[in-house]
Amino acid sequence: MSDSTTKKENDYDLVIIGSGPAGLAAAIYAQRAMLRTLVIEKEAASGGQVLTTSEVDNYPGLPGINGFDLGMKFREHADRFGGQFVTDEVERIELSIVNGENYEPDEAGESSHPDIYENELQAAELHTESCDYKRVIGKKGEYFARAVLIAMGATHRKLGVPGEERLAGMGVSYCATCDGMFFRGKTAVVVGGGDVALEDAAFLARLCSQVYVIHRRDKLRGARSLQERIFALENVMVIWDTVVEEILGDEMVSGVRLRQVKGGERSVLDTDAVFLAVGIAPNSQPYEGLVEMEDGYIRAGESGETSVPGIFAAGDVRTKQLRQIVTAAADGANAVTSIERYLSRI
Amino acid sequence: MSDSTTKKENDYDLVIIGSGPAGLAAAIYAQRAMLRTLVIEKEAASGGQVLTTSEVDNYPGLPGINGFDLGMKFREHADRFGGQFVTDEVERIELSIVNGENYEPDEAGESSHPDIYENELQAAELHTESCDYKRVIGKKGEYFARAVLIAMGATHRKLGVPGEERLAGMGVSYCATCDGMFFRGKTAVVVGGGDVALEDAAFLARLCSQVYVIHRRDKLRGARSLQERIFALENVMVIWDTVVEEILGDEMVSGVRLRQVKGGERSVLDTDAVFLAVGIAPNSQPYEGLVEMEDGYIRAGESGETSVPGIFAAGDVRTKQLRQIVTAAADGANAVTSIERYLSRI
Repeated sequence: MSDSTTKKENDYDLVIIGSGPAGLAAAIYAQRAMLRTLVIEKEAASGGQVLTTSEVDNYPGLPGINGFDLGMKFREHADRFGGQFVTDEVERIELSIVNGENYEPDEAGESSHPDIYENELQAAELHTESCDYKRVIGKKGEYFARAVLIAMGATHRKLGVPGEERLAGMGVSYCATCDGMFFRGKTAVVVGGGDVALEDAAFLARLCSQVYVIHRRDKLRGARSLQERIFALENVMVIWDTVVEEILGDEMVSGVRLRQVKGGERSVLDTDAVFLAVGIAPNSQPYEGLVEMEDGYIRAGESGETSVPGIFAAGDVRTKQLRQIVTAAADGANAVTSIERYLSRI
Repeated sequence: MSDSTTKKENDYDLVIIGSGPAGLAAAIYAQRAMLRTLVIEKEAASGGQVLTTSEVDNYPGLPGINGFDLGMKFREHADRFGGQFVTDEVERIELSIVNGENYEPDEAGESSHPDIYENELQAAELHTESCDYKRVIGKKGEYFARAVLIAMGATHRKLGVPGEERLAGMGVSYCATCDGMFFRGKTAVVVGGGDVALEDAAFLARLCSQVYVIHRRDKLRGARSLQERIFALENVMVIWDTVVEEILGDEMVSGVRLRQVKGGERSVLDTDAVFLAVGIAPNSQPYEGLVEMEDGYIRAGESGETSVPGIFAAGDVRTKQLRQIVTAAADGANAVTSIERYLSRI
């Protein structure tokens, strides 16, 4: 335990890790349920991925809202009930004694947490009044919780081609909303074929002189309404069956080397910016070996219950069919219901 | 088919039955996915149960909003994408041919729809271009859909005591928000111990001189924050372990006959109004025998898929752990994802 914190200060019914729509909705519901709740957020601002979305048009009741504004609204709502927030980055969670008996981690849990039993003893001494808690270990401090909700969301996937890392921030971007303005009147390439790629292309079309969408298949994955919007824009062109092999440029992006999937012909397309919208990856790394996962997502259903009692998951980080703001928010509410039930049992 | 409608007019990718948060969220998502969508709503106004809620404080992003306003916001959001609405009451759904073969209804479906095969032939003639659809039969017309989403919600449960029906609207009410104003400065009884009962009591405490909460147990079920709010109000008194046996009054409510659960002592409490908040019942009756149910709720998970392909359920009407506005809205979004997947397969 760090010097700056004491046990009492850092002892909660619920620690929520992440402050996107799932974490903030959970904070709202948890405060209303009078749970002593702490939200640990990595960034200085709450909102998660929402913050970097230009326009959110599918959160029911708030049509056409700016993503940043929506993030702020969620945060203000959580603050209304006296939500407690700390900025820290969680490195791992250590489990403790369940109902007076040693918690039995699964094989994976045991191997990645060899020190778990030692810590249990030490932690148990610190927490004699409570016989079940989780120790959330961050870079800045440690937090004790009877229940933990993982709502860390997901982040943008990398393309993995030469030039991508080197030119990041020099024309390579993962967020059209954030960086589009730097390329006003210039040429931009969007890589991807899903909703985000199409939304990015539509957004950039308003700023840039020309937008190319590079897609590796002959059919877009994004919503049909978005596809039609894209096809109707005169300065957006879709380049089908093509992949980006390399991002070119010395100090700034100057072009992309393309390869046609069928045939293999190579060509260079001049561009000032490359916006990568090739999917997301769940932010679940700190919990590998702790809870069961599936393709990197924490295995949890609608209730948010993971393979470990007392550890819950909500939002984009869990296995689910649809990752949207409204489904993340619903996850937060559902998880708190499960958490209340769990806490009333232990 | 009624005279006023033709096949073309009434032929949809998706018919949504119900226009509460689940139905309206689904309408938003379906329109964005460019599905030809119709929303059938029973009442003249959209919003469902939300409309009769005084203050909604747990829909993330819109703290402390009036229920009516929230209903309107949802509806306006759906209208933004050109949502099509009709006022009708659905009596039943008839299934049709799936992929050119006769749909095989389960036993229950067969017994409650003896005319299904005849109608199939007739309907199939009308729909030669589509070999899979559902026939939604309302009081005013018929609607053909490739997929149907049942989002009918739930309604207030009756207490079932003498005087309840006779004095309904004469002091007996199921909606404090709607009728509370009639009893300004008077005495009101709230029956129940859940969130709604406590919210009603808090609302009525601002209008009425005295509010009694009659609860059959020695512990309230509602959120602890609501409990504390109630306990802090000087003009609200909880009467524990007590049931209402009869609602008294000639033309208007004058009192309630109470019975203590432990001991059985009876007494009469004078009151001007009785607000019943004893739970909800799913509006699933028209679909009995068509889809699998559980305690009256349509059996469906997060995806909204019911036991019958092409029939989906969202919101309060389906089996789920938490019935809230945000979870209903998420259901609508999820169901449309499942529906898009279903439609792309048939």
